[in-house]
Amino acid sequence: MAKKLPPQTKMATCNEQQILVRDKDLVKELIGKISFTDMFFYHLMQRMPTPADTAILDAVLVTLMEHGLTPSAIATRLTIMSAPESFQGAMAAGLMGVGSGLVGTMEGMAKNLTEITTAEDGLEAAAKRVAQGFRDSRQAIPGFGHPVHKPDDPRTPRLFDVAREAGVSGKYIEAVAVLSAAVDEAYGRHLTINATGGIAVILSEIGIPWDVMRGIAVVSRSAGLVGHIKEERERPIAPFIFAHLEEVIPYAGDRKLD
Amino acid sequence: MAKKLPPQTKMATCNEQQILVRDKDLVKELIGKISFTDMFFYHLMQRMPTPADTAILDAVLVTLMEHGLTPSAIATRLTIMSAPESFQGAMAAGLMGVGSGLVGTMEGMAKNLTEITTAEDGLEAAAKRVAQGFRDSRQAIPGFGHPVHKPDDPRTPRLFDVAREAGVSGKYIEAVAVLSAAVDEAYGRHLTINATGGIAVILSEIGIPWDVMRGIAVVSRSAGLVGHIKEERERPIAPFIFAHLEEVIPYAGDRKLD
Amino acid sequence: MAKKLPPQTKMATCNEQQILVRDKDLVKELIGKISFTDMFFYHLMQRMPTPADTAILDAVLVTLMEHGLTPSAIATRLTIMSAPESFQGAMAAGLMGVGSGLVGTMEGMAKNLTEITTAEDGLEAAAKRVAQGFRDSRQAIPGFGHPVHKPDDPRTPRLFDVAREAGVSGKYIEAVAVLSAAVDEAYGRHLTINATGGIAVILSEIGIPWDVMRGIAVVSRSAGLVGHIKEERERPIAPFIFAHLEEVIPYAGDRKLD
Amino acid sequence: MAKKLPPQTKMATCNEQQILVRDKDLVKELIGKISFTDMFFYHLMQRMPTPADTAILDAVLVTLMEHGLTPSAIATRLTIMSAPESFQGAMAAGLMGVGSGLVGTMEGMAKNLTEITTAEDGLEAAAKRVAQGFRDSRQAIPGFGHPVHKPDDPRTPRLFDVAREAGVSGKYIEAVAVLSAAVDEAYGRHLTINATGGIAVILSEIGIPWDVMRGIAVVSRSAGLVGHIKEERERPIAPFIFAHLEEVIPYAGDRKLD
Repeated sequence: MAKKLPPQTKMATCNEQQILVRDKDLVKELIGKISFTDMFFYHLMQRMPTPADTAILDAVLVTLMEHGLTPSAIATRLTIMSAPESFQGAMAAGLMGVGSGLVGTMEGMAKNLTEITTAEDGLEAAAKRVAQGFRDSRQAIPGFGHPVHKPDDPRTPRLFDVAREAGVSGKYIEAVAVLSAAVDEAYGRHLTINATGGIAVILSEIGIPWDVMRGIAVVSRSAGLVGHIKEERERPIAPFIFAHLEEVIPYAGDRKLD
Repeated sequence: MAKKLPPQTKMATCNEQQILVRDKDLVKELIGKISFTDMFFYHLMQRMPTPADTAILDAVLVTLMEHGLTPSAIATRLTIMSAPESFQGAMAAGLMGVGSGLVGTMEGMAKNLTEITTAEDGLEAAAKRVAQGFRDSRQAIPGFGHPVHKPDDPRTPRLFDVAREAGVSGKYIEAVAVLSAAVDEAYGRHLTINATGGIAVILSEIGIPWDVMRGIAVVSRSAGLVGHIKEERERPIAPFIFAHLEEVIPYAGDRKLD
Repeated sequence: MAKKLPPQTKMATCNEQQILVRDKDLVKELIGKISFTDMFFYHLMQRMPTPADTAILDAVLVTLMEHGLTPSAIATRLTIMSAPESFQGAMAAGLMGVGSGLVGTMEGMAKNLTEITTAEDGLEAAAKRVAQGFRDSRQAIPGFGHPVHKPDDPRTPRLFDVAREAGVSGKYIEAVAVLSAAVDEAYGRHLTINATGGIAVILSEIGIPWDVMRGIAVVSRSAGLVGHIKEERERPIAPFIFAHLEEVIPYAGDRKLD
Repeated sequence: MAKKLPPQTKMATCNEQQILVRDKDLVKELIGKISFTDMFFYHLMQRMPTPADTAILDAVLVTLMEHGLTPSAIATRLTIMSAPESFQGAMAAGLMGVGSGLVGTMEGMAKNLTEITTAEDGLEAAAKRVAQGFRDSRQAIPGFGHPVHKPDDPRTPRLFDVAREAGVSGKYIEAVAVLSAAVDEAYGRHLTINATGGIAVILSEIGIPWDVMRGIAVVSRSAGLVGHIKEERERPIAPFIFAHLEEVIPYAGDRKLD
């Protein structure tokens, strides 16, 4: 078992005058030489990104950063009101909500893409099988459908264009087109590939494993939450939220106040 | 009071076919057009960054991302072992430790720089006053000193070089040099400007308010923690940490086991 | 410095057949023998509680458990909607808001009580000094005033009755009466001793240090949040909150949707 | 769908002079009248506990509170060192680790007990089927086995005794005995019913649904973490942990320091 290997890490080390992060000298080779996005990619994948890798990771991080008053943003704003002493605590409260309800779809799409692109029965048959499987179990299929953006989520074609322009192979973009057709057929109506679905596609194009995709979403969203805390301080809405919800959500217990 | 203004937000909005983040069209003007760092700056400062802004924010985010087995990284690794169901929860557990003990120094340095650059008695007198004030109260002065990097933290001059090459005014770099001389005199020995101190200097150069600096640190560190979770899964050390600490930290209660 | 002492803990130890928590045998002396409240007191104070200790800690834990749709409860409910995979993450998101904005008042009251009961110039003079000090700095004085419960918070006299019936010395209950009179005079109107203020008083009566009081609040509130998650699952309101806030909090950026 | 019902809550309400929690007057009927454990049960189950309910919930909360330097406790201690400004943040960091790796076993045991006690093919057949199912899929069966407490976890029989003395029906205690025999047969060796497994049994006896059991564990553990923060302040071990792990977990990257 892996846990019996001697403990070690390849993350970073330092002495009085040098800091290594992974296999690079932080001061001489990284600071001022590469962007945050390159550094994040390098740290995660342990190789320097190609221009395509950078373009795609940037596009993903830009897409996910800010979505307005999401559950995460509301949680962060209420928390900084109640506990102004902990900036990071308010961020953490919001980040806890970057969960399966929202970004889980990214992981599900990525897993489905892996399944259909490696299936023995071929892409089309596998796409139909997967789409029908979700349909039969009356589940939403991850990465498809959107409550607001209809008929199509405008972010998805843009993300695919960025990926194509960056020169990716297009294997997963093609696969998702096949899956999309199978989904529309199985569900009997058109379901858009949503942005988190599209993100799973292009992150798959550059080899990001599905099981770290949620971490990328957390990083991007964390930047958005810094903006929410700043706006909350400049023009607070948390006191309104707290007071207003008390008004519109009545107490419905059997006992009444005297 | 600010809280009595009608509630509003300037973060984002959308309709079926368009998404605005701040005052930009996400699909047409942001995705594929700007980097994560530019987007973060724009979101936070509500203006597109200059090349100097980008260079400095990138340098800061690269510097802070990864420091090896920090308290944050250990907390994240132990948490993903105990609660593998929540990637974001493990990240949040680590981010909670991005606190005053570590990054508080950034805020303190930024506040001191503001004080000495706006003091009526002039930069030098103010620097001496501030340095002596911390010395007299037997406190460490924020942003100075480092347990490992002696005599000087190698990251700081590199960060200042990046800032100068990017073309900042240099007002705060000059101010910190004056403060540094005053610190050495007040404390009777050389204390390096450490990396978090240096970061406060160059973030001040591009107008980042001291009270969001911690948020920038959280964002950068969040990227590092994704890498820790990935390494933890590939080659776990949390089980070793848990078992080993039990061995080396004895139970010292009065009652003994039968 | 304390950190140079050899590492040790007095919390717990075990072997194959015995578990010690502090200095008690968990199986033979604790489980089935004492209540949660007694165990919590014993664990925290390292002595078994007197009946007065138990009565007061129970009263405090009962008082703080549930306050309806607080910022904490809203954060927890939004988080369990977004990340249903992590019960503990949703609780943690809510607990992060048990901060200085709300329970900080408990700590502040406890510190003021310590100051006035140990002051060289005597209780009355010290109470006036403390009350006037807060008034002069235009700060709210911790533990006084309540937005809803006027003229007096009904929980406070009940908490004091519980403490008196339990047989405490009454030293802090008397001190807060003196402080209360000084506060009314300094602020020029009657400010009730609020529930968190009253809690600080009776926890001081049983020797709980001010710097763990927040932890007691977190424990009590954590129980309340379990109830919120249960109700949220049975009859969700988080989807309403999310949708409704979007309606009532408009986007006020300069750019308009096309 | 439930979400389309008008929003409401039955948690709490108040006016100037009265506070209702659920259907009770907080001041007149709860504070000073019932214990924390009773209040928690009432809040969660919406009925006042019987003596058996109280005895069992107390036994569970006492059992889970403290286990020494668990991953949770280590995370909390490292976090309070790095971010001393946020007591609740340090607790939240630790509570995030009360996850499937540890308490998930409670939920799994409770689900298995429900399955075998309601199976059409009868208790014995169902127990064999469930035990064999886990064995065949090479999974640990939730609630059985312990790395230290062998051959049997001493907490479990004590918990069952408490439940029996409290006068529960014993339905689940009998069921787990049947399951235990089936487990030993399927796995070919004796596996103890561990404490979390035993807790699932007795919480099932008093009708606690499996999907809030984790919340009970979080509440109990939160009390333990308050004690850890207190000990950490009085005699810190986090600095040792941080420094020591750096020593014993080597950097194993390919690049070496100059």
